Amino acid sequence: MTSSPQTVELGELALDGGAVLPSLQVAFETYGELSPQRDNAVLVCHALTMDQYAASRHPVTGKPGWWTRMIGPGRSLDPQRHFIICANVLGSCMGTTGPKSLHEDGRPWGLRFPVITIADMVRAQAKLLDHLGIDRLCAAIGGSMGGMQVLQWASLYPDRVERAVAIATAARHSAQNIAFHEVGRQAIMADPAWAGGDYYGGPAPAAGLSVARMAAHITYMSEQGLTEKFGRRLQDREAISFGFDADFQVESYLRHQGSSFTDRFDANSYLYITRAMDYFDLAERHGGVLGEAFRGSGTRFCVISFNTDWLYPTSESRRVVHALNSVRAPVSFVELSSPYGHDAFLLESPDLYRIVDGFLSGTPS
Amino acid sequence: MTSSPQTVELGELALDGGAVLPSLQVAFETYGELSPQRDNAVLVCHALTMDQYAASRHPVTGKPGWWTRMIGPGRSLDPQRHFIICANVLGSCMGTTGPKSLHEDGRPWGLRFPVITIADMVRAQAKLLDHLGIDRLCAAIGGSMGGMQVLQWASLYPDRVERAVAIATAARHSAQNIAFHEVGRQAIMADPAWAGGDYYGGPAPAAGLSVARMAAHITYMSEQGLTEKFGRRLQDREAISFGFDADFQVESYLRHQGSSFTDRFDANSYLYITRAMDYFDLAERHGGVLGEAFRGSGTRFCVISFNTDWLYPTSESRRVVHALNSVRAPVSFVELSSPYGHDAFLLESPDLYRIVDGFLSGTPS
Repeated sequence: MTSSPQTVELGELALDGGAVLPSLQVAFETYGELSPQRDNAVLVCHALTMDQYAASRHPVTGKPGWWTRMIGPGRSLDPQRHFIICANVLGSCMGTTGPKSLHEDGRPWGLRFPVITIADMVRAQAKLLDHLGIDRLCAAIGGSMGGMQVLQWASLYPDRVERAVAIATAARHSAQNIAFHEVGRQAIMADPAWAGGDYYGGPAPAAGLSVARMAAHITYMSEQGLTEKFGRRLQDREAISFGFDADFQVESYLRHQGSSFTDRFDANSYLYITRAMDYFDLAERHGGVLGEAFRGSGTRFCVISFNTDWLYPTSESRRVVHALNSVRAPVSFVELSSPYGHDAFLLESPDLYRIVDGFLSGTPS
Repeated sequence: MTSSPQTVELGELALDGGAVLPSLQVAFETYGELSPQRDNAVLVCHALTMDQYAASRHPVTGKPGWWTRMIGPGRSLDPQRHFIICANVLGSCMGTTGPKSLHEDGRPWGLRFPVITIADMVRAQAKLLDHLGIDRLCAAIGGSMGGMQVLQWASLYPDRVERAVAIATAARHSAQNIAFHEVGRQAIMADPAWAGGDYYGGPAPAAGLSVARMAAHITYMSEQGLTEKFGRRLQDREAISFGFDADFQVESYLRHQGSSFTDRFDANSYLYITRAMDYFDLAERHGGVLGEAFRGSGTRFCVISFNTDWLYPTSESRRVVHALNSVRAPVSFVELSSPYGHDAFLLESPDLYRIVDGFLSGTPS
């Protein structure tokens, strides 16, 4: 699909951690045209390892966008009706400022980059909307970490979000999720090539990043999905090899997921973005009462979970819904059935598109 | 508790992979005395990272045995009634032959050690019983990989096992379990100190092994258990640090689990034993029909699962029970409630001890 890739300089950004980023750059793609009334803008928020190429070919992998099933002519997000914006998040590595960006001293930030939060990512996106002259979003939508941003948007800027669609997500990161992220970070940091984060210009910590990706990837799938897709089937062989090669298809698949990831993602970005997710707890600044994060909001919410998602299980979505109910915020909630676990939000899911389409097309109450 | 630690040389061992181990050494502990009728022997089979110190102080960590809740005077396995044997498994690193043992050329085997199976472990234990003059076990019992050995024992040597207690286990390793093991192996192999397995005499691949242990440890606990034990509580601080230190208790806990593991376990043993578990599929040699692995067995079975165990879920235990039913083998099955996930079999569990006690005390039907 035709996109308008752009990168803009947006000046200073004050961060939750107290630091001020001197010069924020944001890379983004847009699809469609902003209406004269400026009322058709949809912000698509991406997940941990995704990027702004939601519906455009990825410049590194050459693959189609990661949400072409959701975005496109005749689809739920339609460039003929919507002005769709997807920006690379703060801390990432596809053009928006992050640890591999250059510091004022001319060298990459590396681990000197300040630790960021989901709210910082959202503030960066708000500056982009300011730049684009968009006061109010027709909708903010995203899955996984994208859903965290959506919830954070509605909480930080309730007047700027008409509709919020939070898919396969949570309002806080659980102990188990923090634990998996910590494994990934330790895998990266255990790689000598990581060199304290100062590896730019030399070999990247690909082995560590690959292990991190492999561990995370298991959590994106369901046990049922793994069993259906791979079971105990062998990879290109008739019998086990009595060795440490990838005898099983699931091993081969995971190794590929790990190694191909390192071609397109920066290890330090993985550290910073997982940290931002671990820190995410919307209730924290509201005395531990999640509803207070949304009190007085004018936003209409749609919360969607998948029944086999064990990374962000339905119980976490229900918690968000109960919080919204407690402050009388309008919310629709659906748990969808899928064998595919967390990844279901990226895979073919007609029910998902139908629900999003209906929610975005409905007249605000 | 008083034990009799011993190491014996047991000669050659022919392996499933086709190799013959020239000289098998087995290290084991015993508790109690063998009765004159030689009918009170209980074999305790240990899990992946456990060892023969089931009820004796560990020589490296100084900690009490890993199953002192099960084994001891007045307990389900009672040295005043039973002659209890626990042997370090083949491929491990606490005295039984494994990759860190010396090859005939005087150097450690390293990756020259042949890849082994659960059946190979069991055959090594059978040679130990031969050596001890024990024809028939009063019972074989174990959890996790220990349960795999128990099932393999009953299948390989049906006349030598009167009762089999398989706890928190499965008759095959699932795709998800293979996947988690592969992450661990890749973490070890990604550590340059691993050096193709030839690291003895130099620094061990502690960083890689630590990451492997961290990833595995998450699977031993339930989400509920992690949430109850840690939640999002911070470690020795009032607020998040905006850094990569262990801000959260769960991070600190996992790091400790990883690093302390490397003091007592050999990385190559981790590779070999996880591989043996991945290869485990009792039905495979019986045309894919699990029941056939037990046809004609004279063993009485007790299968126990825990409701929050997602590594070896109850569905896998049910599969074993259905297979046993299909060949009319006597089997008792219980799913116990516990918030602790897979690790529940090692933790305080009065129901577990009561069931094992009842099963072992019952008159054979």
